[in-house]
Amino acid sequence: MSKDQDFMPVAGGGLLDRRLFLKQGLSFSTAIALAPTVVAETARSDWMQKPGAEFSNYGQPSPYEQATIRWTMGNQLAPGNGVSWTPLQNLEGMITPSGLHFERHHNGVPKIDPQQHKLLIHGLVNNALVFTLKDLLRYPMQSCFCFIECGGNSNAAWRSEPIQTEVGYFHGMASCSEWTGIPLRLLLAEAHVKGRAKWLIAEGADAAMMNVSLPLEKALDDCIVALYQNGERIRPENGYPLRLIVPGWEGVLNVKWLRRLHLAAQPTMARNETAKYTELLPSGKARQFSFVMEAKSLITQPSFGYRLEQQGLYQISGLAWSGRGKIVKVEVSADGGKTWAEAELQQPVLSKCFTRFRLPWQWQGQHAVLKSRATDETGYVQPERAALVAERGVQGYFHYHAIVSWDVAADGSIRHVYA
Amino acid sequence: MSKDQDFMPVAGGGLLDRRLFLKQGLSFSTAIALAPTVVAETARSDWMQKPGAEFSNYGQPSPYEQATIRWTMGNQLAPGNGVSWTPLQNLEGMITPSGLHFERHHNGVPKIDPQQHKLLIHGLVNNALVFTLKDLLRYPMQSCFCFIECGGNSNAAWRSEPIQTEVGYFHGMASCSEWTGIPLRLLLAEAHVKGRAKWLIAEGADAAMMNVSLPLEKALDDCIVALYQNGERIRPENGYPLRLIVPGWEGVLNVKWLRRLHLAAQPTMARNETAKYTELLPSGKARQFSFVMEAKSLITQPSFGYRLEQQGLYQISGLAWSGRGKIVKVEVSADGGKTWAEAELQQPVLSKCFTRFRLPWQWQGQHAVLKSRATDETGYVQPERAALVAERGVQGYFHYHAIVSWDVAADGSIRHVYA
Repeated sequence: MSKDQDFMPVAGGGLLDRRLFLKQGLSFSTAIALAPTVVAETARSDWMQKPGAEFSNYGQPSPYEQATIRWTMGNQLAPGNGVSWTPLQNLEGMITPSGLHFERHHNGVPKIDPQQHKLLIHGLVNNALVFTLKDLLRYPMQSCFCFIECGGNSNAAWRSEPIQTEVGYFHGMASCSEWTGIPLRLLLAEAHVKGRAKWLIAEGADAAMMNVSLPLEKALDDCIVALYQNGERIRPENGYPLRLIVPGWEGVLNVKWLRRLHLAAQPTMARNETAKYTELLPSGKARQFSFVMEAKSLITQPSFGYRLEQQGLYQISGLAWSGRGKIVKVEVSADGGKTWAEAELQQPVLSKCFTRFRLPWQWQGQHAVLKSRATDETGYVQPERAALVAERGVQGYFHYHAIVSWDVAADGSIRHVYA
Repeated sequence: MSKDQDFMPVAGGGLLDRRLFLKQGLSFSTAIALAPTVVAETARSDWMQKPGAEFSNYGQPSPYEQATIRWTMGNQLAPGNGVSWTPLQNLEGMITPSGLHFERHHNGVPKIDPQQHKLLIHGLVNNALVFTLKDLLRYPMQSCFCFIECGGNSNAAWRSEPIQTEVGYFHGMASCSEWTGIPLRLLLAEAHVKGRAKWLIAEGADAAMMNVSLPLEKALDDCIVALYQNGERIRPENGYPLRLIVPGWEGVLNVKWLRRLHLAAQPTMARNETAKYTELLPSGKARQFSFVMEAKSLITQPSFGYRLEQQGLYQISGLAWSGRGKIVKVEVSADGGKTWAEAELQQPVLSKCFTRFRLPWQWQGQHAVLKSRATDETGYVQPERAALVAERGVQGYFHYHAIVSWDVAADGSIRHVYA
């Protein structure tokens, strides 16, 4: 790191212009400058001395990357009830690999035989239908890059003291995939939905028969019955062979192992829309059917668990998303929110999809509090924690989406703070 | 399938308007219409009788999807020399799952310890550098969705008789991922490239020390030194821990296990740019440094190995890509190229990236010859096979990108034809 690099900050705490890295001649690392005659570093490593491994039918991550896994948390009294988290702190880009997509199961992962699985559409329809997988594979498909986020994601942030854990095990019940399947409106049209149908009750083929109610209007808008995730057939723990994709709405609505769509005039008042996935407000009333996941962002690198080992240039990197459409702006602060600088958004920016943002930062050993703040295309701005708590109280569990703060100490260590 | 559906074709052989599937009330399948009282189909399946499997640290495909693998072909006399193919016939959407990304190795897959791996930049530079992985992880990153296609992809199409095999084992040395890494120009700037450097020789850390020459101009344009594929660190067989990504150019340039970048005034005339990855022309001369992968497309569903089991509506689906930029149009023919209809392009359409196209088709038992034809943003139109052969002869092996034809017989069976 050249010590005499001198950049004009665009905001407090060392934040630099987002286009800085388009310039030439920067220095970021401890890369060793070699005398041109020094070629010792080109010596053959052990793995260059003999032929490597053979071809494989299906690839797996490097054995050196075994830290990049989903941490799981099950309920010992209820097998298969729990969650696993996407390790967002170890990932880059927009896509979540399917093997690392978060899980939230109510009664484990069923092993479904696709030859036997069927999808039933019935209730307030003139033409009740049952589809085999073979039928469905004949249908027209569409693809959609979108995030799925559990309504309970980030729930630890409701606690009175900030939790100290990696970002994935705090906010990692959110993942992003390319889903491909059949527009739900095509299947509903074929069933001839009756005029008084206003809701659609979706049910999974797990042992819990997990079910939820979805307004018909959303079902006719952008929902798909997905068969493929990131190019291949959906993985078992992500809903094989069929998953209802409800872009931008809370994860529980994206019913896995989809087996039944029941058209109805009213919601069914299932367990997971009454006892759970509702939010108790300070007034004593509870919010119900809080479907949309609001605009949210967080810095994934650096974050808790990282340590800045030297002064110099860094790239702050994170993710933003909104259930209401596209992210139009992400601002970053390094001084706890006093001043903000606009981050670069990785293209393409897609609706209801993870958006990667990045910004250069010069850290010279100063104490810093890093924050990110997303704005979506409706103009909605991600709130500070204090504002969210003022509105919603502290009895909540679901739908936490306030600004996340990372405190960087002079020794480069990073803590989660409420700031 | 309702027999009296009557749609106005937009081209011969039953091709229908690409917006047809936006309409309501179509019928595609053999879905069984149920009397409203019939609920036998909602009976609980075996897998609903007991809790399912527990959470997993890293997910895998369903055991029922074991046909969706890379077929491999190795050289028994040279371990680790060969290819494996992406099973394009079984995939949908734009992304190739990392575990199914095609492989072309010259001496197997090295098991690289990331703590020991280094990247050397030297030759015609003022500041030779060696980077550890830890250094590189400090650098600014960018993401890029792009295809990689082996220069030898589709080589079977140079044969005098059309090969009868699944589309993946014919055209599947092409795959598409989101790659994230460091813009190569940043690393080169730090090394202070000398004015007389015009080429960059990239070398991998496999036992073959596979190397190729890349013009400096391309290196300074859009190349990246990738560390991540589809969100996670690159898989071993895709180049862990570092891969040079050269968007739109032939696969061999996308050097896996990247260990060395040597700046030079001339290309190195390596084996894989002289004896291989060149094309013998009818004149007896050979094309060399034919870097760019031209516009190409193919229908993946239906294709060889599928059988149309009943008459009715189908969705034709396929992939198009160009190394010169975005795909702007894909046309489909069902009558062997006499008439064409424009397919719908799945958004987002990205530069040098797979683009999924789809078109409705009504098959009423007629003999049909299905073709697709891509046009890219430079105006280049994918040629018919006869035109490509007229230009390049039949001694070629690399860079086959002509139109692919599938013959659909009256019994619904599908063969590959030259038509």
